[in-house]
Amino acid sequence: MTIPLGEFDLIARYFTRPARRAFLGVGDDCALLPAPAAGEQLAISSDMLVEGRHFLPDADPEALGHKALAVNLSDLAAVGAQPLAFTLALALPQAEARWLEGFARGMWALADAHDIELVGGDTTRGPRNLCITVLGTVPQGRALLRSAAQAGDDLWVSGTLGDARLALGYRLGEWSLDDVAQATSFARMDRPTPRVTLGLALRGVAHAAIDVSDGLLADLGHILQRSGVGATVHADACPASPALRTQSATRRRLCQLAGGDDYELLFTAPTSARDAVQAAATQAATAVTRIGRIETRPGLRLIDAEGQVLDNAYAGFDHFRPA
Amino acid sequence: MTIPLGEFDLIARYFTRPARRAFLGVGDDCALLPAPAAGEQLAISSDMLVEGRHFLPDADPEALGHKALAVNLSDLAAVGAQPLAFTLALALPQAEARWLEGFARGMWALADAHDIELVGGDTTRGPRNLCITVLGTVPQGRALLRSAAQAGDDLWVSGTLGDARLALGYRLGEWSLDDVAQATSFARMDRPTPRVTLGLALRGVAHAAIDVSDGLLADLGHILQRSGVGATVHADACPASPALRTQSATRRRLCQLAGGDDYELLFTAPTSARDAVQAAATQAATAVTRIGRIETRPGLRLIDAEGQVLDNAYAGFDHFRPA
Repeated sequence: MTIPLGEFDLIARYFTRPARRAFLGVGDDCALLPAPAAGEQLAISSDMLVEGRHFLPDADPEALGHKALAVNLSDLAAVGAQPLAFTLALALPQAEARWLEGFARGMWALADAHDIELVGGDTTRGPRNLCITVLGTVPQGRALLRSAAQAGDDLWVSGTLGDARLALGYRLGEWSLDDVAQATSFARMDRPTPRVTLGLALRGVAHAAIDVSDGLLADLGHILQRSGVGATVHADACPASPALRTQSATRRRLCQLAGGDDYELLFTAPTSARDAVQAAATQAATAVTRIGRIETRPGLRLIDAEGQVLDNAYAGFDHFRPA
Repeated sequence: MTIPLGEFDLIARYFTRPARRAFLGVGDDCALLPAPAAGEQLAISSDMLVEGRHFLPDADPEALGHKALAVNLSDLAAVGAQPLAFTLALALPQAEARWLEGFARGMWALADAHDIELVGGDTTRGPRNLCITVLGTVPQGRALLRSAAQAGDDLWVSGTLGDARLALGYRLGEWSLDDVAQATSFARMDRPTPRVTLGLALRGVAHAAIDVSDGLLADLGHILQRSGVGATVHADACPASPALRTQSATRRRLCQLAGGDDYELLFTAPTSARDAVQAAATQAATAVTRIGRIETRPGLRLIDAEGQVLDNAYAGFDHFRPA
């Protein structure tokens, strides 16, 4: 049902809650937030999700509300920041109550889980587009940076890789999946878990970090480029879900090495910190797996379980690269 | 010319500059900014501009780059905040170099004028959509709020009102304009001046403030509602540009009272502060005009130059209100 809600009714009905930390919340010209404590830095990130590109027109609005915030929280996780607040700008072809209710429910559930406040934004009519900006805090000098990898570091990844790509391939008709594999892989694609707790626990333990959004090798490439180092990755050591483990080695590698949208943390840490990394993982209740090594020699080398070098034909996702 | 730029080339070519205040700028997972000084609050606002709704497909990209940032800076001006940094999320149907160059030029010119840094964002393919989030700072308790108007306050407005609506009416074929009126009114619509300096100068002088984006009476309505007061507005006292002064009284009132997109500051201040308001205006090199009075009696009353009450048929703009 499309109901003739005005813009201000819309804001009031779905996106207004009593302000907590914010002095002014949704509905004034700006939100006002107390400045972080002395010695804290502000971490900021924006992500835009576009219908037809990042999600389908018939996507479940509740999952979308979750995902739009999750991908932003994942950026905070990747620098080890504590989430503080977010803004939401929303373009919609029409003000549809059922869609808005679902979207708000998914967004609020994740916001509440991370104790993060919606402090402002914008609603307008237009092709469906969701733009969230998150703010977080991190003690001065303690952020996990893409540029901090050092030769000799272990390369680690959280959770499992490749499930979102497995679901996408099914949706695109590239392969079939049984019901269980569909359910588990779609859950990963539609409702990714931002690794915020792990990012916080890795401060002072890990060197470099990034979240896997464009694909493992593409995102690792960003770390290598920024840090001026190279790496060897054990292709078959990448942690896989039960659904992905039943797939062929070729498909599994494709999903794990080139598949984006997993939102796991890829990070480096000195070998002396292996126990500390495991302790951080336990604290965050998130599995971590060693998948390679940072090296002085530039470039990215892929090897299989027998140590044979594999071709790296796994480009990452680029929104403007011609197909 | 459409050139096959990748997402990362795009970011590098048009939107990367050496970071100044920011520790990490465009291209990492998050930007990191030093926290504001103790006693400062953070002011945050997001605005989304959609092609076909806020601008036409053939809009000058340089003007758009200006306007996308200007409407956000105007929100900071309305609370009296000092601009600090902004993020830009951009959806584009294709990576067109000429468009991006123009957009970046307009955006950087205004950013530099306000010494504000681009600290991050997102680029993706999709229907053209520009979403900017601005951050600013304001000393604790000194922000200008919509809720702070008091009965007895003067009602003031900066600059002139109605030019953007005059230009829009010409574009929509509602009326004709001579060349000079076209040039001046389109300049106002396409390149609004955010009243940042005036907002800063009005801290401690003005009570309530808002920027005129939806229309004078609609935006005044927000102040009245939030402050629990009423107002009388002298319709014919609204400051008008030379182009608008040549129009009929009916058209002038329509443009001035209901026209949005002017981005002037509408604010209230006690009568005892008239000299201080004028001093702030002089300091900001921005004219201000008294156009009415805040009153205890609820509601909004419009009167003409003879003191006759006018019908208020001037609704503001609402993106989701049925036409």
